[in-house]
Amino acid sequence: MENKAITKRDVDFAKWYTNVVMAARLCDYSSVKGCMVIEPNGYAIWEKMQSILDAKFKELGHQNVQMPLLIPENLLQKESDLVEGFAPEVAWVTEGGSKKLEERLAIRPTSETLFSDYYSKKVNSYKDLPMLYNQWCNVFRWEKTTRPFLRSREFLWQEGHTIHATKEEAEKETKQMIDVYRWFHHEILAIPSITGIKTEKEKFAGAEYSLSNEALMYDGIALQSGTSHYFGQKFSKAYNIKFTNNQNKEEYVYQTSWGTTTRMIGGLIMVHSDDYGLVLPPRIAPKQVVIIPIGKEGLADKLSEEINEKLNKGGIASYVDKTDRSPGYKFAEAEVNGIPLRIEVGERDLKENKITFARRDTRERIVESADINITSYVEKLLDTIQDDMYNRAKQRVESQTFTAKNLDEMKKILAKQPGFIHADFCGNPECEDKVKEINGCKSRVILPDEKLITGKCVACGKEAKYHVVWDIQY
Amino acid sequence: MENKAITKRDVDFAKWYTNVVMAARLCDYSSVKGCMVIEPNGYAIWEKMQSILDAKFKELGHQNVQMPLLIPENLLQKESDLVEGFAPEVAWVTEGGSKKLEERLAIRPTSETLFSDYYSKKVNSYKDLPMLYNQWCNVFRWEKTTRPFLRSREFLWQEGHTIHATKEEAEKETKQMIDVYRWFHHEILAIPSITGIKTEKEKFAGAEYSLSNEALMYDGIALQSGTSHYFGQKFSKAYNIKFTNNQNKEEYVYQTSWGTTTRMIGGLIMVHSDDYGLVLPPRIAPKQVVIIPIGKEGLADKLSEEINEKLNKGGIASYVDKTDRSPGYKFAEAEVNGIPLRIEVGERDLKENKITFARRDTRERIVESADINITSYVEKLLDTIQDDMYNRAKQRVESQTFTAKNLDEMKKILAKQPGFIHADFCGNPECEDKVKEINGCKSRVILPDEKLITGKCVACGKEAKYHVVWDIQY
Repeated sequence: MENKAITKRDVDFAKWYTNVVMAARLCDYSSVKGCMVIEPNGYAIWEKMQSILDAKFKELGHQNVQMPLLIPENLLQKESDLVEGFAPEVAWVTEGGSKKLEERLAIRPTSETLFSDYYSKKVNSYKDLPMLYNQWCNVFRWEKTTRPFLRSREFLWQEGHTIHATKEEAEKETKQMIDVYRWFHHEILAIPSITGIKTEKEKFAGAEYSLSNEALMYDGIALQSGTSHYFGQKFSKAYNIKFTNNQNKEEYVYQTSWGTTTRMIGGLIMVHSDDYGLVLPPRIAPKQVVIIPIGKEGLADKLSEEINEKLNKGGIASYVDKTDRSPGYKFAEAEVNGIPLRIEVGERDLKENKITFARRDTRERIVESADINITSYVEKLLDTIQDDMYNRAKQRVESQTFTAKNLDEMKKILAKQPGFIHADFCGNPECEDKVKEINGCKSRVILPDEKLITGKCVACGKEAKYHVVWDIQY
Repeated sequence: MENKAITKRDVDFAKWYTNVVMAARLCDYSSVKGCMVIEPNGYAIWEKMQSILDAKFKELGHQNVQMPLLIPENLLQKESDLVEGFAPEVAWVTEGGSKKLEERLAIRPTSETLFSDYYSKKVNSYKDLPMLYNQWCNVFRWEKTTRPFLRSREFLWQEGHTIHATKEEAEKETKQMIDVYRWFHHEILAIPSITGIKTEKEKFAGAEYSLSNEALMYDGIALQSGTSHYFGQKFSKAYNIKFTNNQNKEEYVYQTSWGTTTRMIGGLIMVHSDDYGLVLPPRIAPKQVVIIPIGKEGLADKLSEEINEKLNKGGIASYVDKTDRSPGYKFAEAEVNGIPLRIEVGERDLKENKITFARRDTRERIVESADINITSYVEKLLDTIQDDMYNRAKQRVESQTFTAKNLDEMKKILAKQPGFIHADFCGNPECEDKVKEINGCKSRVILPDEKLITGKCVACGKEAKYHVVWDIQY
């Protein structure tokens, strides 16, 4: 049914996005400027993201810890690139316990400094390495313009910070973790993405290089969705993180960090949702199946409970909507909240031994015999929904992927619509500045396959060193 | 084996406590004054606490949300009792994005204000009620003297905040949640505790009344371990949280909040640990069983893996210590880390078809046939350890529980050792001040059974209204 609270996606994408966020009650604005309240429906998605990623991190040997929220100014300043990158965005605590502080304390915008300070005290020998730590926490960046989930002053994330005895091991970790984000996007969120290396200009402040996972939204604009940084010895030299290697010589550790945030919830919406509200891929949906009994004879209620029990036993997150409201109201609510599958158990249909399944993604209704093996049927149908959602998103990305040989071609493409634009690049940051003049288009990633380089730099026409994907970004 | 890094508990309890925290690598001091780094062993305990409590909260219908970290000063000031209670402890953000702010922002010391502000916008009708929200987050209080887990400027906690249509329902919720904390302490942490009502002087700033769960540490000092507050309409009037009731009349909601913190980790240590390091009750231990193979023929390794697989399948958190270190080193490490049960699989013993179990709590070693049903044996043994730990703690509390009729008796008891002191009380805060003069002794809780009142007020000798338990506190 048409949802009047939601602007049509093709009419005003930005308005549509905010309408979906509010209609599905994922988050709300707060009285604190630039900060949001994550509501139950939104937080349940974050919890499911956490549980899946956390299990994967642990499987790979990582352990969770918790560093302090605040960073003394002198500690933050030890690594100069990081300070330069984050200084304009820092919130400062200057008063505590009714007194003015002697030294300002920053609310962490990211925790490289705290982890480095900690590691410098803890590591002695190569036998202590690697140390593979992660934390789930809130961070704060003083953003000027904010949008729910996509850009807010405070956001929730995880940040992994690891130290290693060798360059090879640390680089392997950097690569492994971007692959985890890629796996998470493709397999769990049904979001196809591209993975590559950030250019010098776009890399993380303080990193030797940054790997990034980039997704394409419905409107053709890119969303950076998970990054993994290789620091080499930059932080270990600034924070004096030394160890005795297996040759009994003192050496600085090799370091990585990697993170992803609540912003992925925004990505989920902008890839999959529609004019009727939220659409969630089954593997990330906190509630996968809603069962709605229709009829007053008690028959529908009884069968609904039986189906629910079977599905729960089979590991499917289903529930019966037993509230005192009309079936139509229940349908609409499940639809706007993005429950992947609805099962209608109607007493009239039961007389013909039928139940109805309604897919949220296609809104297709399928009538089946009430005698089917419900658990295996639903399992398969949820898998089909997941695969179909991924394939539709993939097709859209393909239709929004372009190639440009020069700035004129790029301009023409972007005048029509944004998208992933493949174009070769010489490596000169001034050429990136020229591209940026076209609607703020930026390099997303360098694709690591050199064979992809077939032409000259898109901006200056000189010898190309990299094959880069470009796009406007969120 | 004697642990030289740990001061004897009966020699210097405070030093012993810090030594155990450090030796078991639960947390460490950070470069940020008054803030700690929670290390992997400590954070794993917190994660297990979270997962058990969170499942219970959800079972009772609560949903998780996330409120902002910062509170604008004017919002904080709307409820005057709360401001007065927390003002001296607030950390203030006064600069952000390189500019001085027009209004100071407090780092949340607790989130009644933010929840109330949110609820005031969200609730309309009695049909929207109850709203049963909880959040897991960090809070900040500018403490002067700090101790790992027990008192730190930043700590992790959960805070539940609920609103209801009736007084009865809200009071039922307040009681229900203190009972959850009590259950958690008794059944999971093996910590006997007393539950009751805080006196007017000791209740939460802004509450109509506070219920508290109080545990007794090894040294006889009390630790407040979980509180549940009934606010009545105090916050709903201050923050204008109104709804239309089922008589179609406007009314203010009835409100509660309840919370417990990482401080419980400190409580666990101070109740159960010993001169050899950490001792954890099996139900809260992240790792319940360590299996240590001894011998180089491969036989011990193979059997250890088999045992581990069986235990894991049975839902027991076991692991094989396969590291390249001596059995003695492995024993000592498992001991200081508080792994409840050690299984020694030695090749010499296997020739006689024997394996050995070593309990961490009693340090008793039990030799058994290698043919026993290992899963059910270990399950039972872990239950026995849990029960024995609870009973020993309970006996100690009983031996540290006293009765006093007047201040002289109280002084005599406290001169010998602290403990739960039962004494009647007239209700006058000045009498509490007099008690406080004795080593800082405070009312812990009023026990709700009036029949317990048998005498006169311990301080003034006048008519008693309450039967109170008193003690020095952490």
